Amino acid sequence: MMVLISYDVCTMDSEGKKRLRKVAKECQNHAQRVQNSVFEADLDYSSFLKLKEKLTTLINPKTDSLRFYYLGNNWKRRVEHIGAKETYDPEGVIIL
Amino acid sequence: MMVLISYDVCTMDSEGKKRLRKVAKECQNHAQRVQNSVFEADLDYSSFLKLKEKLTTLINPKTDSLRFYYLGNNWKRRVEHIGAKETYDPEGVIIL
Repeated sequence: MMVLISYDVCTMDSEGKKRLRKVAKECQNHAQRVQNSVFEADLDYSSFLKLKEKLTTLINPKTDSLRFYYLGNNWKRRVEHIGAKETYDPEGVIIL
Repeated sequence: MMVLISYDVCTMDSEGKKRLRKVAKECQNHAQRVQNSVFEADLDYSSFLKLKEKLTTLINPKTDSLRFYYLGNNWKRRVEHIGAKETYDPEGVIIL
């Protein structure tokens, strides 16, 4: 199954920056990064549930969020990309 | 039709910060922000095409990107949200 995963992690303090790095690393280990905070995970249901549970434990639910979009079987024709393919290092982001 | 729109805009210079503000504003005018750089647009096809064309003119295709996910009719059951509902001001982001 293909799932789009996006996250917001509030990096106003050092704890937030740590959470962001952990969330990004976990996503990178199991999914394809398509934008800085957007990943596509092509996983079996069991593996996806494990990833979702892990990510849920990593965020602070008061300040951060995760979104999962279940793209279905015909997902390739549902996606359009415009512009640069490569992303800069998103863990270099600081919120003022 | 419901379309998920996500963007990456490289804000390493002041031109990039301007582009980010313009892209975000255009999305805010036509879609619902669900995360900092993720919007859901529930538009007729003609309006969506106009928005897509406008966003395409705003980005620098060498450094920025747009992604569109066509979520289909049953999109509500395709989406899961975990954590905070509110996002901080994403135009306050600086890339070091």
